[in-house]
Amino acid sequence: MKRFIVINGPNLNRLGKREPSVYGHETLGDLEALLTKTAIDLEVEVSCMQSNHEGELIDCIHRSVDEADGIIINPGAFTHYSYAIRDAIASVDLPVIEVHISNVHRREAFRHHSVVSPVTKGQIVGLGLYGYVLALTALAKGEE
Amino acid sequence: MKRFIVINGPNLNRLGKREPSVYGHETLGDLEALLTKTAIDLEVEVSCMQSNHEGELIDCIHRSVDEADGIIINPGAFTHYSYAIRDAIASVDLPVIEVHISNVHRREAFRHHSVVSPVTKGQIVGLGLYGYVLALTALAKGEE
Amino acid sequence: MKRFIVINGPNLNRLGKREPSVYGHETLGDLEALLTKTAIDLEVEVSCMQSNHEGELIDCIHRSVDEADGIIINPGAFTHYSYAIRDAIASVDLPVIEVHISNVHRREAFRHHSVVSPVTKGQIVGLGLYGYVLALTALAKGEE
Amino acid sequence: MKRFIVINGPNLNRLGKREPSVYGHETLGDLEALLTKTAIDLEVEVSCMQSNHEGELIDCIHRSVDEADGIIINPGAFTHYSYAIRDAIASVDLPVIEVHISNVHRREAFRHHSVVSPVTKGQIVGLGLYGYVLALTALAKGEE
Amino acid sequence: MKRFIVINGPNLNRLGKREPSVYGHETLGDLEALLTKTAIDLEVEVSCMQSNHEGELIDCIHRSVDEADGIIINPGAFTHYSYAIRDAIASVDLPVIEVHISNVHRREAFRHHSVVSPVTKGQIVGLGLYGYVLALTALAKGEE
Amino acid sequence: MKRFIVINGPNLNRLGKREPSVYGHETLGDLEALLTKTAIDLEVEVSCMQSNHEGELIDCIHRSVDEADGIIINPGAFTHYSYAIRDAIASVDLPVIEVHISNVHRREAFRHHSVVSPVTKGQIVGLGLYGYVLALTALAKGEE
Amino acid sequence: MKRFIVINGPNLNRLGKREPSVYGHETLGDLEALLTKTAIDLEVEVSCMQSNHEGELIDCIHRSVDEADGIIINPGAFTHYSYAIRDAIASVDLPVIEVHISNVHRREAFRHHSVVSPVTKGQIVGLGLYGYVLALTALAKGEE
Amino acid sequence: MKRFIVINGPNLNRLGKREPSVYGHETLGDLEALLTKTAIDLEVEVSCMQSNHEGELIDCIHRSVDEADGIIINPGAFTHYSYAIRDAIASVDLPVIEVHISNVHRREAFRHHSVVSPVTKGQIVGLGLYGYVLALTALAKGEE
Amino acid sequence: MKRFIVINGPNLNRLGKREPSVYGHETLGDLEALLTKTAIDLEVEVSCMQSNHEGELIDCIHRSVDEADGIIINPGAFTHYSYAIRDAIASVDLPVIEVHISNVHRREAFRHHSVVSPVTKGQIVGLGLYGYVLALTALAKGEE
Amino acid sequence: MKRFIVINGPNLNRLGKREPSVYGHETLGDLEALLTKTAIDLEVEVSCMQSNHEGELIDCIHRSVDEADGIIINPGAFTHYSYAIRDAIASVDLPVIEVHISNVHRREAFRHHSVVSPVTKGQIVGLGLYGYVLALTALAKGEE
Amino acid sequence: MKRFIVINGPNLNRLGKREPSVYGHETLGDLEALLTKTAIDLEVEVSCMQSNHEGELIDCIHRSVDEADGIIINPGAFTHYSYAIRDAIASVDLPVIEVHISNVHRREAFRHHSVVSPVTKGQIVGLGLYGYVLALTALAKGEE
Amino acid sequence: MKRFIVINGPNLNRLGKREPSVYGHETLGDLEALLTKTAIDLEVEVSCMQSNHEGELIDCIHRSVDEADGIIINPGAFTHYSYAIRDAIASVDLPVIEVHISNVHRREAFRHHSVVSPVTKGQIVGLGLYGYVLALTALAKGEE
Repeated sequence: MKRFIVINGPNLNRLGKREPSVYGHETLGDLEALLTKTAIDLEVEVSCMQSNHEGELIDCIHRSVDEADGIIINPGAFTHYSYAIRDAIASVDLPVIEVHISNVHRREAFRHHSVVSPVTKGQIVGLGLYGYVLALTALAKGEE
Repeated sequence: MKRFIVINGPNLNRLGKREPSVYGHETLGDLEALLTKTAIDLEVEVSCMQSNHEGELIDCIHRSVDEADGIIINPGAFTHYSYAIRDAIASVDLPVIEVHISNVHRREAFRHHSVVSPVTKGQIVGLGLYGYVLALTALAKGEE
Repeated sequence: MKRFIVINGPNLNRLGKREPSVYGHETLGDLEALLTKTAIDLEVEVSCMQSNHEGELIDCIHRSVDEADGIIINPGAFTHYSYAIRDAIASVDLPVIEVHISNVHRREAFRHHSVVSPVTKGQIVGLGLYGYVLALTALAKGEE
Repeated sequence: MKRFIVINGPNLNRLGKREPSVYGHETLGDLEALLTKTAIDLEVEVSCMQSNHEGELIDCIHRSVDEADGIIINPGAFTHYSYAIRDAIASVDLPVIEVHISNVHRREAFRHHSVVSPVTKGQIVGLGLYGYVLALTALAKGEE
Repeated sequence: MKRFIVINGPNLNRLGKREPSVYGHETLGDLEALLTKTAIDLEVEVSCMQSNHEGELIDCIHRSVDEADGIIINPGAFTHYSYAIRDAIASVDLPVIEVHISNVHRREAFRHHSVVSPVTKGQIVGLGLYGYVLALTALAKGEE
Repeated sequence: MKRFIVINGPNLNRLGKREPSVYGHETLGDLEALLTKTAIDLEVEVSCMQSNHEGELIDCIHRSVDEADGIIINPGAFTHYSYAIRDAIASVDLPVIEVHISNVHRREAFRHHSVVSPVTKGQIVGLGLYGYVLALTALAKGEE
Repeated sequence: MKRFIVINGPNLNRLGKREPSVYGHETLGDLEALLTKTAIDLEVEVSCMQSNHEGELIDCIHRSVDEADGIIINPGAFTHYSYAIRDAIASVDLPVIEVHISNVHRREAFRHHSVVSPVTKGQIVGLGLYGYVLALTALAKGEE
Repeated sequence: MKRFIVINGPNLNRLGKREPSVYGHETLGDLEALLTKTAIDLEVEVSCMQSNHEGELIDCIHRSVDEADGIIINPGAFTHYSYAIRDAIASVDLPVIEVHISNVHRREAFRHHSVVSPVTKGQIVGLGLYGYVLALTALAKGEE
Repeated sequence: MKRFIVINGPNLNRLGKREPSVYGHETLGDLEALLTKTAIDLEVEVSCMQSNHEGELIDCIHRSVDEADGIIINPGAFTHYSYAIRDAIASVDLPVIEVHISNVHRREAFRHHSVVSPVTKGQIVGLGLYGYVLALTALAKGEE
Repeated sequence: MKRFIVINGPNLNRLGKREPSVYGHETLGDLEALLTKTAIDLEVEVSCMQSNHEGELIDCIHRSVDEADGIIINPGAFTHYSYAIRDAIASVDLPVIEVHISNVHRREAFRHHSVVSPVTKGQIVGLGLYGYVLALTALAKGEE
Repeated sequence: MKRFIVINGPNLNRLGKREPSVYGHETLGDLEALLTKTAIDLEVEVSCMQSNHEGELIDCIHRSVDEADGIIINPGAFTHYSYAIRDAIASVDLPVIEVHISNVHRREAFRHHSVVSPVTKGQIVGLGLYGYVLALTALAKGEE
Repeated sequence: MKRFIVINGPNLNRLGKREPSVYGHETLGDLEALLTKTAIDLEVEVSCMQSNHEGELIDCIHRSVDEADGIIINPGAFTHYSYAIRDAIASVDLPVIEVHISNVHRREAFRHHSVVSPVTKGQIVGLGLYGYVLALTALAKGEE
């Protein structure tokens, strides 16, 4: 059975509490429950982690080489400057899909540029928590 | 039954013939067949159009107000400069998802910026033809 | 009797329906009626056209050489990138006044720059539909 | 009877003497006479002031709150850098129309950007002294 | 016998009438006659088209795959922003030579950058109508 | 007893009347009363001036050499372009604290850059009228 | 009794040892003692933390929601690039004052831009350790 | 006898007191005495003025049309942003030489660009007070 | 009989040895033989020079005034920065055609800009050694 | 005996596994063995650490003040944005040499700029693992 | 007796022949005669050299250390890019005055920036050949 | 026995005399003696050249193809603009190491960018004359 890791970056532990007009009212727990349920439907395994520490995100990406068949990552604000996470993604030979809950292109200028996009397989942006569901579906069923 | 329109912009009529290392070997006909089949599964209606003419794409977006419940659009190269298509999207009160077949962030610098993203609901990028399937799923089933 | 052509670009057919907080509730039909009435007062002839197709706008500008004594143009979003329309204006030896309904300088950054302004006689911006009336007055009565 | 103030900025006292190929041969006196005559036709009151001192222009804008129903301003070269005049305009709750005699978009690059446009109601550019007449007409008769 | 297509973009139908100090007095008809005569000398076939419509230029480039052994294109103002035409050129496997009548590097800054040059074989710039003759010669006789 | 001068730049005479959502409802008179009261508590002397004229602000800074032990300055919009005020500050050997009532970094881009900050001792920004109180306290009691 | 948290970012543990010509000779311990003393005078509680780890700073900001009535933060070099800390600040509904010991606008260009300023209440810059005292005073006594 | 006006801008009244390491120890009085003596040698008349007020500098430039055969101007910090002074210089038909005491190209970046240089006859930079002597010599004896 | 000079700049002496995937396998000797043969066909005289020394290229351009009726120049890497060669070309009253062997617009960004193009008659780019043949033909037979 | 610390930043733990075409096949263990052997030859002590956590790298740099006579650092991707590491290096009074295994100037644009270079003694770039050997030699034997 | 060297850069050997509307009709010989005559009046020695070769200009600057008390240099187009000449000037401990015949700030944008100005004592620009006379006077008689 | 060439660019002949605070007191002769001694230790041959002439440096690089097994180059100020030297390096199939004596990243902004780095094998910067010794060691003993 295929295994996927969902990695959420800084401040996503405050989902549902932080700026609900932007991110909605559902919490990180709700998201992880939704993904667990989706995984069952797709007959894959999913595990989730979240950290506000760039180094822990990098360590986790490295470990995925041995533990997963693909990664879904929402690097939060690290999206816009963490070349270290970019290099970590580039250093593992796995399909990686980048997800953003809100449509970052409607927001502040610094959110329009992602330093990790060039080393991911693709991006799903602005479709809310459902974007993670789509990403998991794509990894499980989509064409490689 | 909900109706959706899939709009493909310039040069997508050459899908499968044009730069297959970038865009794959499947044709526009294959894509439209795939979407028709997906629509049946999702119990929605889908209609497809393609044009190399910016004005026809705008006309089609305008008509969608009366004919559809949502739009999937791949504006091709117009993504990067057609403020007229952007204004057309902004002028209709429908959810619009922007799709790109290839991961544009791996390619030439001019492809990294989309002038339509700020007025769409979200974007699905780099997931091949399957990106359209995900977009249709999102419109049919995803949270609004 | 002097003849003038009023050319409206993309999405102006949706005037009154599109973003009324920006563009007001009057329609393109209302605008054309207002201009017809103004023309009678000014004892000039006016004809109006609108198109979402850049090529048709260019063709119309070319035809004006033989059909008109001046042009009022609102190029819509083409204002910001259509060097082809700019060249068309530069290729005809007629006074051309550029009109924008809203104050474009209060809006998105891309709307602050007009590629056609350097080849027009002047611009009237932000004065609503009345801006067209002023432009027609200027062409009919203003100093050359 | 509605009252309007026409404010001319630096170097406009040299109108008719300064670079006539750009600004024409009519003087500031000619302009003020033209506006007085126009005001009579429009059944409004108009008063004119000119200064080369930024501070006096700001003081005059402040006074207009109590003395006028609208402002026509040609800030001259201050157009391009006087954020102080911009703030003065923003601080008064009156319709303000910005006028430029020449088509600034045909001239040096620094003249292409106005720091006051975002806080004015609209702009009339490149239509010679007649631009002031149109602005007065717009304030007196145009839709608010 | 080798066949070549000569594609002229927007406003080139006004050749000889438009800004003769820049483009000379010869018309599009004169150019097409010159190319027909050159083709006879070179023992190749040539056909010419002109359009002000970006979409028609793209359609024509697509058709060339089946109808021609090479393309000469002067995209007019589209040179500077039509990534759609760029993609059309990149989508056909033919030698394409870009021609400009005037020396664009002496003119406005926006004319200094061509978005199509990177996907053409080469460019001939500033040599007047004779540039088309040289381009046809290069396609007919030059080294590939 | 130490003496300090508080210098307020253009449009601050309209405090309380101008954009109260940004600047609050207290007037320049209220601010000057607050500072007088604070000075008594701190056992220092304070005098206040305001002008919309850049030259008067410069003259006042020059006079401070003989009349004061420190300056609090809110240069208003001159903050963003008056290199003349910057040079005036640099020409006097006194501690100068720059104050802004609103958080300028939340507002228009042009307000993010201060040309005087490099020649002041420090800045207090976004803390309302209380920022002046803090600045006076810092000059009176803070470490040099 | 109101409680405030003072958060110092990377390298501030070396205060007094690091570049004393820029930062002075007082240590982090001296600063914390000064703030404890000030808190007693102001009748508030203060607690201090310092970390060189971005993630720990974010965790601490998150915890402040339950533990404090306001935050004073000197993000050190993170000021200039940590959008993750910016998002952490934006995610908590507390007044936050940003403090910098030195006048960053006199130093290297990269220190002139703060990515956190737009989401803080205000900034105190260049007033040495006394800036923290002023910030604490502002949180305890200043107008909200 | 030819008459010349020497115009000194903001902060030059503090010459000799302000940053002597940059500007030396001689005062504005010393400079004016030096120029009076030079004028006698050159058999011309010279008059000097200084102001910190941009408007007064402009008024003075305007008056020079009737009162002088040439202008020497050191606009101080206005050099770098006063397009109003630039326009004043352009509006008078007199030779104008721009002088700077220090070598501005060794100093802060903002001092490297002069907005008035394009409308002056020439510039003398970095040669101390002697630069004014050379400028006066050039106006009195140099080739026009 | 008309005489033309062909000037090749730095590193072109290594043609055929240097990066053959970019420049092909033919040597500078082959090019000069090709041009000699072409000159005979065109009934003109041609002489060739090559130097890696900017000064020698300038000296040669100066001498051409007396020795030639036109110049073909490939300035090699000097194309991108030698304003001295640009001025040399501008100082001679001869038609000059700029040639580049490879399509510089496909290569590194610094090769996209030519500082000499604005002072040449035209450019032929990307057509291999045949580009020189076309340039010689244009000088010999093309319209002036 | 002199002691040196070798600090390797994020993703260098994957050396030999990550992009071997860029970084070669030798692992971090191989590098550390090579340095240990080199240290013996040079009669110095060397200790190595690696971390993906920015904060740990900063802590280690701080500790080096008491534990080492010099630092060799390869900050990995932090090179390009970690002003916090830059400040840590600036806060210790030790010679620091920056090493990069690959020639970063041949790679993506973001790798061309190092924020730490201005505070290091020097850099060795592109010479593979041997670069560390050279750096250790320079610290042990090179001129200070 | 003091000795000075006048160094003229590329294309100045064509003075009087090159673009006389910009540079006038006097030749390099005329300039050198004028300077010789001026030197006699000033009781100094002057020697002149001109070269189109950057290396020869550098060699000459180096030799000046032993042969001269000051340098007048017009680096021609090298002004705008020759950091090598800049370094040569910085390497000699002599006063150097930079001269430009025309007002470079009225001309093409690339001429507005001088890479040598920061290492010269001062500049004299736009005063024709007389600028050299003034520069020699300044070196001979001006304050150091 | 392997042979290496050491190429020093403009102004390095003034080493020891020029700005000793930047470059130290040792001369070019000292450097060449040091390299000769090092070569003996490494059992390789070394030859040195220096020139202020860009063309001679290019000629020397070309000759190295036949005369050397590797190049050490310090292009001096040419580092920052000589694309001709870059092309010369790219045209020879030898390992080339770029050396800079001072840490260029601590100096003026123009010294931060090297146009030759992308075509060299690597760079050694800021390690004084010892950097050449390391470079020679790397060529003689380092991994290729």
